[in-house]
Amino acid sequence: MEAILLNEKAPVALYYQLKEILVDKIKSNEWEIDSKIPTERELCDLYEVSRITVRQALEELENEGLLYRKQGKGTFVTAPKIEQRLSSFYSFSEEIRNMGYTPSTDIIEFKAIAGDEMIARHFNEKGMMVYCIKRLRLANNEPFAVEISYIPCDLCPGLTADEIAAKGLYNTLKTKYNLIPNEAIETFEAVVINSNDAFYLHVGKNAPGLLLERCTYANERIVEFCHGIIRGDRYKYKVVLK
Amino acid sequence: MEAILLNEKAPVALYYQLKEILVDKIKSNEWEIDSKIPTERELCDLYEVSRITVRQALEELENEGLLYRKQGKGTFVTAPKIEQRLSSFYSFSEEIRNMGYTPSTDIIEFKAIAGDEMIARHFNEKGMMVYCIKRLRLANNEPFAVEISYIPCDLCPGLTADEIAAKGLYNTLKTKYNLIPNEAIETFEAVVINSNDAFYLHVGKNAPGLLLERCTYANERIVEFCHGIIRGDRYKYKVVLK
Repeated sequence: MEAILLNEKAPVALYYQLKEILVDKIKSNEWEIDSKIPTERELCDLYEVSRITVRQALEELENEGLLYRKQGKGTFVTAPKIEQRLSSFYSFSEEIRNMGYTPSTDIIEFKAIAGDEMIARHFNEKGMMVYCIKRLRLANNEPFAVEISYIPCDLCPGLTADEIAAKGLYNTLKTKYNLIPNEAIETFEAVVINSNDAFYLHVGKNAPGLLLERCTYANERIVEFCHGIIRGDRYKYKVVLK
Repeated sequence: MEAILLNEKAPVALYYQLKEILVDKIKSNEWEIDSKIPTERELCDLYEVSRITVRQALEELENEGLLYRKQGKGTFVTAPKIEQRLSSFYSFSEEIRNMGYTPSTDIIEFKAIAGDEMIARHFNEKGMMVYCIKRLRLANNEPFAVEISYIPCDLCPGLTADEIAAKGLYNTLKTKYNLIPNEAIETFEAVVINSNDAFYLHVGKNAPGLLLERCTYANERIVEFCHGIIRGDRYKYKVVLK
């Protein structure tokens, strides 16, 4: 491996120069996905910088989801984030297939409950019965999102977990209940993933996540409120603005 | 204050029931923005739950940006997040004004540099000179985003920090250089805010942020690459999908 020496007199901090060099190795595929990168010690020697500089560069690359650490095994290159284009209705499964991964979904919970205050706020009705469907989304068997969908029971009497598992939620709404969503309003915000979701998503304490909230409408009636947590290190959204 | 007792037999965890009640007090404005909420002790007594339950509810509300803590003073209600609609080109300043806040911008850094690997990747040219313009965005004097814009020097010779401070960046590009952006591609991802940005943004360790990357085009030529970090507790994006 060639050793580009960093420029101590440059106006850019050393750790940042190092970080940019490492990013380039990742983006150019010189360092392949899931391959082990040199140790901290080796990077110090290679670029003639201190351990602190190397650590800061690696830490930021880890935070940005470009590298991941395996306890006792070293630091590895992360696969590129799943890139979801936000232009029209989208399906996690489709986008994941487009990226070359195999999508799957686990139903963690399926129940009918009397709506609480949160449900009342979104559906404008107190105490209505809703299905609460909690699903784990995976790509190549790695979890990347936990979603809870709330759907009014009166819109789809007799909905079952088995149908959703077999045909998917939207597909079931469409074929069995003739509910064809034509608009959705989504919001995104960055949050710390809570311990309960972190358990399902296989991430550590304080991991960053996207909180997604979506109201889906069919014929101007709200048919679903969805609350999702998406792993920040595995997913990004893309939007084209004109 | 009335005390709704929580239901220990409900299928929903106690902390979550409590959290929903508190969310309702915030969203309904029963608890006003920037007002102090009851202490942990008081909440324990009021809802007859343990300190652990109260702490878990408060911690999640803090992570989601609904409450904030002031060392030694208590817990307070956060102002609603700035909601940015992602439909066409947008301006931070305009959206902030729409929310009833006063926008402002500090130029932290303005320099011309030879592009590094990251610049070469985005502009498809090695070593080109670019302006590097680092700006802090504020709403009512509270910082919510740090942005670095990179703009090729050859597109706008003689650009100055003073012009940008006086007229804004896009406005200067338009009026002085006749560069009228007509498309932008943005990506968003959730990250942990690094210590350098945390300093500017007045947030603590491990605070969540949105990493925004934008390529802006005028006449099919890229005129700007922008890298921004936005406080997760103060900002959310909204998109309408059809």
